[in-house]
Amino acid sequence: MQIARSIAEMKALRSKCAEPVGFVPTMGSLHEGHLELVRIAVRDNPVAVVSIFVNPTQFAPDEDYKAYPRDLDRDLAMLDQVKTGIVFIPDSQDMYADGYNTWVDVNGITGKLEGKARPTHFRGVTTVCNKLFNIVQPHQAYFGQKDAQQAIVIQKMAADLNMNLEVVVCPTIREKDGLAMSSRNTYLTGSERIAAPVLYRSLCLASDMFSNGERDAGVIRKAMIDLISQEAAAKIDYVSVADLQTLSEVDKIEGNALASLAVRLGKPRLIDNIILG
Amino acid sequence: MQIARSIAEMKALRSKCAEPVGFVPTMGSLHEGHLELVRIAVRDNPVAVVSIFVNPTQFAPDEDYKAYPRDLDRDLAMLDQVKTGIVFIPDSQDMYADGYNTWVDVNGITGKLEGKARPTHFRGVTTVCNKLFNIVQPHQAYFGQKDAQQAIVIQKMAADLNMNLEVVVCPTIREKDGLAMSSRNTYLTGSERIAAPVLYRSLCLASDMFSNGERDAGVIRKAMIDLISQEAAAKIDYVSVADLQTLSEVDKIEGNALASLAVRLGKPRLIDNIILG
Repeated sequence: MQIARSIAEMKALRSKCAEPVGFVPTMGSLHEGHLELVRIAVRDNPVAVVSIFVNPTQFAPDEDYKAYPRDLDRDLAMLDQVKTGIVFIPDSQDMYADGYNTWVDVNGITGKLEGKARPTHFRGVTTVCNKLFNIVQPHQAYFGQKDAQQAIVIQKMAADLNMNLEVVVCPTIREKDGLAMSSRNTYLTGSERIAAPVLYRSLCLASDMFSNGERDAGVIRKAMIDLISQEAAAKIDYVSVADLQTLSEVDKIEGNALASLAVRLGKPRLIDNIILG
Repeated sequence: MQIARSIAEMKALRSKCAEPVGFVPTMGSLHEGHLELVRIAVRDNPVAVVSIFVNPTQFAPDEDYKAYPRDLDRDLAMLDQVKTGIVFIPDSQDMYADGYNTWVDVNGITGKLEGKARPTHFRGVTTVCNKLFNIVQPHQAYFGQKDAQQAIVIQKMAADLNMNLEVVVCPTIREKDGLAMSSRNTYLTGSERIAAPVLYRSLCLASDMFSNGERDAGVIRKAMIDLISQEAAAKIDYVSVADLQTLSEVDKIEGNALASLAVRLGKPRLIDNIILG
């Protein structure tokens, strides 16, 4: 496993890579969800590159940039074990030098769901991914379905900007009780952790209702909200049943839809989703 | 000379190109200024790609997108003569499909000079160049010094986004009387054409003053304005002596500076510039 600690080092390693190159961008604090993406990248490409970069521009000033969990030694050991080819660990001064001033925006879909709750978030995500894609020049970039809107936004950016890569979206990896793996799960206290699977249970309820023929999105949303509300610690940010392309809320589900939610459990804010259809 | 009329055709041709690839993005209506860029691209690369695309997103609604001069047959004949390898002529539906919604912004320097007069212009330029660079994947992209701010903005975008290309800025090509070549010169009536070299004369005056030791930018600006004002038809939009990196107006010139101007002569609005130092 090779380690590049600067953009220049990464570009030098990249110029000697066998192709195609698979790429998994991460913010570190790795869990089984990330590792599954890396395993797929390793399986499908002679070289898999993983970046670890807690990207400051996707956090708002009141968010958890400084507190975001970091454990580089543990991350590197995990990546070595799944046969990662190259780990790219830039620092933020290298990524955003003084006077940095270029931004990539996907409009429209970034105003919904997570983008509504976190209005500057996706600009940071699309900008850093644009940079990382130029540095790593992957043929395939792997993202988790758990961040469904992020995956849709990155796919839209790649298509609109005519990028030469495929954005591959891989299934959400869950704990045994259904909680979607997330670096932010480490914030949960004991009782919050016990309550947390209610997110997934509400998504399964939505999926069951859909399978049983329910197409009224309002009925599904209400059932999800009622279920989550049974957990006193759970504060709903949003519960959504939306069009998979536009991410606009739907009244009646035609074809398929994205059921998604954001819920605060104490301090941490957790998100999850399931595709209906 | 090969012609690609769609993004897919261009990408297919690009995948078979000898490298490095040189690229000259244009809006057509070619003149000697463009051809000089192409000659340099041909000289320095086994394959030179020229795009012809009148980019709608860099024109404001009240600007001359529809009236912008177009003469594809003439352009192709000229490009053939200078040994262009590939001409890329996408249509706007291919470049901006329904639902297109991704934008690249360089902030800061785009608020000055041309960006102040044309607030949506550079977003269109940086977005289309980002797309064209992904499609053509050039090692070197050639721009004219005549659009000085455009060249600086593109260089900033390429650096900030870690693009794998060099932005090469080539000298302004001028008519015998000093008028900078521009597709928009075709708009000039006979008397406007006679008056037009006053732009370059004012830049030469600035250069002479600088060479003779003048460092007070205000004195230089005033002399330029006084000279241009002698032409009754000339309506000054701006006359600037600015820092070459930030494009902010300077009081005292330290090292070097960009003297630039935008002047209306009847309908057409002409720009030109010279580097002092």
